[in-house]
Amino acid sequence: MLKLFYSRGSCALASLITLHETGEKFERIDLDFSKDEQLSDEFLSINPKGRVPALVTERGTLTETPAILVYLAQRFPDSGLAPLDDPFDLAQVQSFNSYLCSTAHINHAHNRRSYRWADDQASFDDMARKVPETMGACFDLIENDYLKGPWVLGDQYSICDPYLFTITRWLEGDGVPASRHPRVQEHMQRMNERQSVSAALS
Amino acid sequence: MLKLFYSRGSCALASLITLHETGEKFERIDLDFSKDEQLSDEFLSINPKGRVPALVTERGTLTETPAILVYLAQRFPDSGLAPLDDPFDLAQVQSFNSYLCSTAHINHAHNRRSYRWADDQASFDDMARKVPETMGACFDLIENDYLKGPWVLGDQYSICDPYLFTITRWLEGDGVPASRHPRVQEHMQRMNERQSVSAALS
Repeated sequence: MLKLFYSRGSCALASLITLHETGEKFERIDLDFSKDEQLSDEFLSINPKGRVPALVTERGTLTETPAILVYLAQRFPDSGLAPLDDPFDLAQVQSFNSYLCSTAHINHAHNRRSYRWADDQASFDDMARKVPETMGACFDLIENDYLKGPWVLGDQYSICDPYLFTITRWLEGDGVPASRHPRVQEHMQRMNERQSVSAALS
Repeated sequence: MLKLFYSRGSCALASLITLHETGEKFERIDLDFSKDEQLSDEFLSINPKGRVPALVTERGTLTETPAILVYLAQRFPDSGLAPLDDPFDLAQVQSFNSYLCSTAHINHAHNRRSYRWADDQASFDDMARKVPETMGACFDLIENDYLKGPWVLGDQYSICDPYLFTITRWLEGDGVPASRHPRVQEHMQRMNERQSVSAALS
């Protein structure tokens, strides 16, 4: 049985929702980041990066959200979570998720995890001040260019949707007003109506 | 015919090498970042992010290195560039490439592109000072945990290799001595012997 290492408020929510979408049984293990449980020897032996999500499979542990999402789509093809057999369509899925991972999530991380890239409090303050601008710009692009609606790819729900939902939930805390991206907000509401999302957030 | 927008010194090198690996004809268009050619109206109409790589296909433009690399592997399956039909093996490819994209490349970007996340010169200096530490730690993990050798996945060359090669070339400029990661350096030398790499760097 698959086992997901998770933490509330983290990007692992995208993988958790996707596991619920597959309808398969799995085990969820919550790590408390406020207690640094992700840095315990036990967890570091599972994922030396000390991050979530980490998905433990019968063949080993997988990390990185874009990788885990395609893995779940490919392992459970009946769930129809990605256009697996069309290289161009799958590349668009991957392009969107890679942008969330390496641009949107990274911009967000400069709010409270800026110590990863600097040492001085003044730098942390400077970085935090810029987050509304960088996250706003990122979601302008998603609102105007990438979110086709009603789902990211258009009519077809996919592994892009829980990942967008996960990061959209961070916008308010990052100082980006909901009114700036009405289509993204509609997408979030649509996601909130899915059973997989209720199950993941319960 | 595929068309790759490229810039010397950028991460687009991974896509360029991979195109050469396929043996297919393609067009390469060099953008001069010192002249801000990536921000021209013409290029922004192709890729609104103003970044490379951008791969123009007969069905539209693809962006983000991890997406482009899997696309090329899937479009040209005879090249054997990724374990496409094994969800776990493909997820390992994707996990590695996602780590390069969202951790290694991002750490590197804090050297000369820190203006993306802050505004003050003192912050830029602080971030630049930390790059040897963050890039060093990143490559410690690659050296010790991920690079199986002789190629990233072991005996099988894959789309992980040109991406690792591309970022390894940045280490010296990021203040990480070559002697710290001997296996990564051997990998770079092995890559330098490939025809695709000579063709890409010519």
